[in-house]
Amino acid sequence: MSIFLAELIGTAVLIIIGNGVVANVVLPKTKGHGGGLLAICFGWALAVFIAVYMTGSVSGAHLNSAVTIALAVAGKFSWSDVPLYLTAQLLGAMLGAFFVWLTYRQHFDASEDASMKLASFCTGPSISNPLQNLLTETIATAVFILGVLFITKADASLGSLDALPVALLVMGIGLGLGGPTGWAINPARDLGPRIMHALLPIKNKGGSNWSYSWVPVLGPVIGACLAVFVYQLLMG
Amino acid sequence: MSIFLAELIGTAVLIIIGNGVVANVVLPKTKGHGGGLLAICFGWALAVFIAVYMTGSVSGAHLNSAVTIALAVAGKFSWSDVPLYLTAQLLGAMLGAFFVWLTYRQHFDASEDASMKLASFCTGPSISNPLQNLLTETIATAVFILGVLFITKADASLGSLDALPVALLVMGIGLGLGGPTGWAINPARDLGPRIMHALLPIKNKGGSNWSYSWVPVLGPVIGACLAVFVYQLLMG
Amino acid sequence: MSIFLAELIGTAVLIIIGNGVVANVVLPKTKGHGGGLLAICFGWALAVFIAVYMTGSVSGAHLNSAVTIALAVAGKFSWSDVPLYLTAQLLGAMLGAFFVWLTYRQHFDASEDASMKLASFCTGPSISNPLQNLLTETIATAVFILGVLFITKADASLGSLDALPVALLVMGIGLGLGGPTGWAINPARDLGPRIMHALLPIKNKGGSNWSYSWVPVLGPVIGACLAVFVYQLLMG
Amino acid sequence: MSIFLAELIGTAVLIIIGNGVVANVVLPKTKGHGGGLLAICFGWALAVFIAVYMTGSVSGAHLNSAVTIALAVAGKFSWSDVPLYLTAQLLGAMLGAFFVWLTYRQHFDASEDASMKLASFCTGPSISNPLQNLLTETIATAVFILGVLFITKADASLGSLDALPVALLVMGIGLGLGGPTGWAINPARDLGPRIMHALLPIKNKGGSNWSYSWVPVLGPVIGACLAVFVYQLLMG
Repeated sequence: MSIFLAELIGTAVLIIIGNGVVANVVLPKTKGHGGGLLAICFGWALAVFIAVYMTGSVSGAHLNSAVTIALAVAGKFSWSDVPLYLTAQLLGAMLGAFFVWLTYRQHFDASEDASMKLASFCTGPSISNPLQNLLTETIATAVFILGVLFITKADASLGSLDALPVALLVMGIGLGLGGPTGWAINPARDLGPRIMHALLPIKNKGGSNWSYSWVPVLGPVIGACLAVFVYQLLMG
Repeated sequence: MSIFLAELIGTAVLIIIGNGVVANVVLPKTKGHGGGLLAICFGWALAVFIAVYMTGSVSGAHLNSAVTIALAVAGKFSWSDVPLYLTAQLLGAMLGAFFVWLTYRQHFDASEDASMKLASFCTGPSISNPLQNLLTETIATAVFILGVLFITKADASLGSLDALPVALLVMGIGLGLGGPTGWAINPARDLGPRIMHALLPIKNKGGSNWSYSWVPVLGPVIGACLAVFVYQLLMG
Repeated sequence: MSIFLAELIGTAVLIIIGNGVVANVVLPKTKGHGGGLLAICFGWALAVFIAVYMTGSVSGAHLNSAVTIALAVAGKFSWSDVPLYLTAQLLGAMLGAFFVWLTYRQHFDASEDASMKLASFCTGPSISNPLQNLLTETIATAVFILGVLFITKADASLGSLDALPVALLVMGIGLGLGGPTGWAINPARDLGPRIMHALLPIKNKGGSNWSYSWVPVLGPVIGACLAVFVYQLLMG
Repeated sequence: MSIFLAELIGTAVLIIIGNGVVANVVLPKTKGHGGGLLAICFGWALAVFIAVYMTGSVSGAHLNSAVTIALAVAGKFSWSDVPLYLTAQLLGAMLGAFFVWLTYRQHFDASEDASMKLASFCTGPSISNPLQNLLTETIATAVFILGVLFITKADASLGSLDALPVALLVMGIGLGLGGPTGWAINPARDLGPRIMHALLPIKNKGGSNWSYSWVPVLGPVIGACLAVFVYQLLMG
């Protein structure tokens, strides 16, 4: 399997299960309606576990544009490969969001609440305040990337055996720092599905909240770069 | 232990714990009544873990007719062994459902709700629409089998050490894609207990919803074949 | 550490955490009040994990009279050591129940509900019917011991590395088969704390339900022997 | 990375995720509001897992003043290094609490309930009674440290591979023994954030409950020393 396909399929699986659990919990008439915070956090942890387990040995399972950029900034990943990875991640996230919509189509139709339809695609703030939300995404991503750098000993390419600790790390970030913004900590995870929300013919879907869309892109990139800086400071 | 017995006992244990947790959550007056989505997903994950751990080294722990058929289609499993595996799985699922009924007999008697009694045996759609439900089961099974193929490196015979990742995979599929139909993703898991529902002398049991019964059989088979096709496409 | 002390301390830790989580969930004014089925099942799984991890290398971490008897019946454990193990397990369970009471004393005092106080010590049926309850405990224990025999390859002495699979097994049994009786599956776990309930000066404690006490002793012993029989039948 | 920095960063990450999940569950308008006992216990388990995984190979991942003191008492750790560890842990806990506040600042502002703001920093008793609360913290810490001593074979320095069992141990203690006081079991975890609660400009924050502050410091130290004593008694 090519690196491009691995990143694309891996990110698609990440979104199918991760956004799938959000749809399961927030859309009406599902088996999991009202399943709560812990169900969502477990869903994302399992999404990360499965996607990393599947693609770790091929592409290093970035599956996250902030990881790719952080590694390039740290000099551990060639800048010339960055566009390939970012494109694969964005397309994969869009593909994943498409399958979530296909799976839950009747439940999107059954819902009256446009904000819950949007939540099944991308993140949004509990209390809207762009700069504070940016700070939250920055802190959450910095802790996440710092954890990844320690787990992978500064390499950040993930192998299959890293799947479990990284899944637990993502779940820990979600429970601990996901309260204010729903922890995107990954530009592709947020932007790809948001584009699909805008494109897909979802009944009564409302807007795609583009005015917020830069926060879960910029915050994770800043946080990732900060984490690399702190890591290098710590490790000398 | 013979391969036939391993598949039969393994599938029975899968259903005893998996359907057991559904009964525990949906039937009245149990310790787990109202335990929610996460309890059910954990129950099925643990059911898979235990059953695969017990039988992986003997039969490769298919425990799922879609796995067996997918492997035969992929040329990794002899077609001549398929009837043996499918029979063992169906009988095992029926045996498992019998023990769940035996264990929860008083709670079946105490329940007024025929649909919850049926749910303790087999799956059903949240919003009935056969073609959409078929699509959902197809997508869920395709992601599941694709994950299994990656975990087992295309072999899909599971050893004891695969028990944990496969259990986590099943839980991820349940949380992410189980919302619309309750993720059968396994013809034996649905059909065997449904037959037992029709046969057993359950008080006020209502119909066995046979008009839906083909969906969780056909969907998983289509999904499994699609997964094999995609896997071979990806891996060349 | 002697074998006797290992079984005693291990069973005490099992009960401290396992009964502790029940007290946390069912007694009033605790941090965990109303925490639900999944919290209780996780608590018991973690109790098993920790206790087996601590004592596996010394005594084989039976920590359960049904395990000890099953092994003796199977000819894998000397009958002359059985009294030592059973005594240590019973004393350990009593010691553990004492510490749970010490820890939650104010919450026992604050509770008006004698049945919840008793539930913090020992199991009881959701729907009282001795023969059906006996059947449930027998089935649950048989599946548990069968799992243990497969995990330990018929030996049933547990090492530290078996701690995780056995903990997951206990949790699976609890979720799947614990609905009708609260899955004692261990005579010492039920009888030891019940004796402490009768002895301790608990305010408004009500009776210790001795008329039920034989069920979670006899059921697990029958189930364990059945499991040994089935295992030997299967493995030849 | 120096030992001092490892203890400081590790304790900071422990508090960021651990106190973060408390803030997520108890503060208003978060994604996790009302997430319950199990979410909090999982959050702390993941906090421990990540922090130990990150720093185990550098400092032995004490991250807990009671662990450091217990090891010195046991003669396994030099008393001359104790001040360095305790200082790093206290500063790390303060730093972590600062980041939790930064992340959840708007939710602190949105809350009317001063007790929930304090709970996002430090522990408090469900039923106030200093001596009983001290006993509870002592028992919980003694079981915790006893578990750590068994896991690490009396050494108590934790490596990365100990991260999972220790995380499960902390979660077990929280579920089983955390009901009355919220299981501090770590002086730095309680005192550091309490100091930050007193220092930070939190709107309508109320008092920092200094009259209780000695309990989660003294209890863990007594419990840790008792555990060392019991362990040495058991192991000869």
